[in-house]
Amino acid sequence: MPYVIEGLIDSFEKLIERPADEFKRQYDIDVLVNTRAERIDPLQQKVSAINLKNHKRIFVDYDSLVIATGARPFVPPIRGIHLEGVVLLRNYGDGEKIKSLITNGVDSAIIVGAGLIGLEMAESFKKNGVDNVTIVEMADHILPNILDGDLAKIVEKHLQDRGVILKLGEKLVEILGGEGGVGNGESKNGNRRERVRGIKTTKDSIESDLILLGTGVRPNSEIARNAGIDLGYANAIKVDEYMRTSISNIFAAGDCATATSYVTVKDTYLPLGTTANKQGRIAGENAAGGNAIFRGIAGSAISKSFDLYFGRTGLSFEEALKEGFEPAEETIESITRSGYYPDNKPIWIKIVSDKKNNGRILGSQIVGGEGVKGRIDLVALALLLNANIADLASYDACYVPPASPVWEPVNIAASQLIKVIKSKSIL
Amino acid sequence: MPYVIEGLIDSFEKLIERPADEFKRQYDIDVLVNTRAERIDPLQQKVSAINLKNHKRIFVDYDSLVIATGARPFVPPIRGIHLEGVVLLRNYGDGEKIKSLITNGVDSAIIVGAGLIGLEMAESFKKNGVDNVTIVEMADHILPNILDGDLAKIVEKHLQDRGVILKLGEKLVEILGGEGGVGNGESKNGNRRERVRGIKTTKDSIESDLILLGTGVRPNSEIARNAGIDLGYANAIKVDEYMRTSISNIFAAGDCATATSYVTVKDTYLPLGTTANKQGRIAGENAAGGNAIFRGIAGSAISKSFDLYFGRTGLSFEEALKEGFEPAEETIESITRSGYYPDNKPIWIKIVSDKKNNGRILGSQIVGGEGVKGRIDLVALALLLNANIADLASYDACYVPPASPVWEPVNIAASQLIKVIKSKSIL
Repeated sequence: MPYVIEGLIDSFEKLIERPADEFKRQYDIDVLVNTRAERIDPLQQKVSAINLKNHKRIFVDYDSLVIATGARPFVPPIRGIHLEGVVLLRNYGDGEKIKSLITNGVDSAIIVGAGLIGLEMAESFKKNGVDNVTIVEMADHILPNILDGDLAKIVEKHLQDRGVILKLGEKLVEILGGEGGVGNGESKNGNRRERVRGIKTTKDSIESDLILLGTGVRPNSEIARNAGIDLGYANAIKVDEYMRTSISNIFAAGDCATATSYVTVKDTYLPLGTTANKQGRIAGENAAGGNAIFRGIAGSAISKSFDLYFGRTGLSFEEALKEGFEPAEETIESITRSGYYPDNKPIWIKIVSDKKNNGRILGSQIVGGEGVKGRIDLVALALLLNANIADLASYDACYVPPASPVWEPVNIAASQLIKVIKSKSIL
Repeated sequence: MPYVIEGLIDSFEKLIERPADEFKRQYDIDVLVNTRAERIDPLQQKVSAINLKNHKRIFVDYDSLVIATGARPFVPPIRGIHLEGVVLLRNYGDGEKIKSLITNGVDSAIIVGAGLIGLEMAESFKKNGVDNVTIVEMADHILPNILDGDLAKIVEKHLQDRGVILKLGEKLVEILGGEGGVGNGESKNGNRRERVRGIKTTKDSIESDLILLGTGVRPNSEIARNAGIDLGYANAIKVDEYMRTSISNIFAAGDCATATSYVTVKDTYLPLGTTANKQGRIAGENAAGGNAIFRGIAGSAISKSFDLYFGRTGLSFEEALKEGFEPAEETIESITRSGYYPDNKPIWIKIVSDKKNNGRILGSQIVGGEGVKGRIDLVALALLLNANIADLASYDACYVPPASPVWEPVNIAASQLIKVIKSKSIL
């Protein structure tokens, strides 16, 4: 959606993978839209639902059930959260609303939360003529779930160089309503809603016409919990490797469900489209009698803001410590093309490995102008295969001047980390 | 060098990693330039050499010796090969010569050999105003050492759409000299050399002012052989994993030496810069008393011509058959960005795996507008780790619309190959 709001893509409809009626036409699958599932009865094997247009109740029988209720944005319980001009970005309605606010000449925006959505939207706002774009982040650096502080600094500078104002280590306390500026806000029942005027943080007051909350999501797991299904990590629906819940003919997949990390072999919750797609396919196959297995996630994530990509997979040094590993880490700066080739871009690669277990790879964080996706994926595969740091220093990387230097940066980073571990073990 | 000839980079000097005098300044290493090593005496531990400026003989003592004599272009033993206008592309002198021929208005060029250099130079010629560019290739498709025929066809169309003429399944028989057009050719001793007029192939005669031979290279291994050192695959200097030759204090590295494939665990010869760099570092370390090991190569190679990258790693289906595997293969076409994202590019991925050994990965070939390097590298790592096809279908790939579709193409290709293997094992 940030790309539609930015104007790179011309309509939200283009983002729809498959319209509901296509399921009926292609696969003879009934899709009940505008229908809210309200209750699952595991004994009767029935779902009761409400048709939101005519408010009639319907009951749907099932042999197997897949719960794919997704997640919803977390809305912090603070004053002013319902003011006109306070927006989320979860569904197309949200997107349309933001786009119309920008079109109507909003010239300042505050983004609360410097995560993936926050950073994508900072670019989107800036490229749409919103002059003052401020990101407020509680942590002491941006992208706290993606990058350590040292790599985050590179992205911070990139954003600041493009005019984005960063307020780090500041927490949103209250959203301020407009006394003077009433604006054009009108609520659904026809009453004028008070417009937003700015925010108060733990350190400051900042004026703004638009507040975007990018403060994470929560799983829509209540319907499962109410049916007696076990919840797990972060209150997501607990599933096994077959995507089966604690009730054997009920499956769950996607942003409402847990996923097992293949690095720690523990449950976690990381609601991303890639995982949702894979889990959905497996839940569907198994609900139909199959026996497919989800191998789990490494916590791979990537995004881009302006001209910089940033991604991670596996564990950070701190996370590895907490998991009981004995980690070592090294960060190198390299380039994405041969030194002499035009439009060469910098790339920073951090690799974390265990000092024990033969130097087992534990994770990686990468920031760069290009070539981040392929390298994060490579480390994600290394994690699946329990590769060690010598493997990552030794694989036969290919080389062509427009796409890499002759020494592959991942090979370099791994070689450097080997040296670090060796030199420290001598001391 | 093709990039300098094309004009993307403004001088050949920019390609020099480190000038000879830097070694003296930085590391106190004497580099004898303009000096040709002629003979190695392993008993006396001496190299005899000729200073090419004053023709004096010198002797250099050694404790350890590293042979890094590189390779030279293969020049086919046919008539007309020494005509003016017949060029190679190995050293900067060759590059300068080609650049000056183009600057002087050559308007047709024939490239003999549709390998990596041939295809890079086709683009370089075309972008420098050489109207007629013809590639003559003995095999029935271009890039015979990189791609199978089906993927090569995609690159062939790409070249033809950009005006490059392809003559496939045609062998160079003779280079034709010019009777009428004497040209400006002048040999070193001041005599005019006859200029090239075209070539005769097994099927045709083609006129041209410039003939570039891109017919592969041969290792400069004679000095080793004459010292009693064993040669190996393709007459390259046989080395072990320490880069040690058959004489224990003599090492060899780079285009003059063999390399072991970590897929077949057999010696091979694939002279590429990546391998040369790695082998050189290991030979140097071990010549100085170290104990470093070269893990081998997967046969990873990549190049680009116009807007298409093409690469490979590991074995093709045919090569796998010859090596005694029971291969299966599958090719998919996907995209490099989300379907709705601008400048989306196609990518074709072929994966070869063993039907036995739990579906062990054997190789991959990829052609696409971007994202080829990262994916070839990922498969090269999979090969090092003896990964199987389920691993390649399951790793947690990251996703961001400007750099990938939500289903990673390698995941898709591997999943499809699993289906192919399963469906065939049922039949």
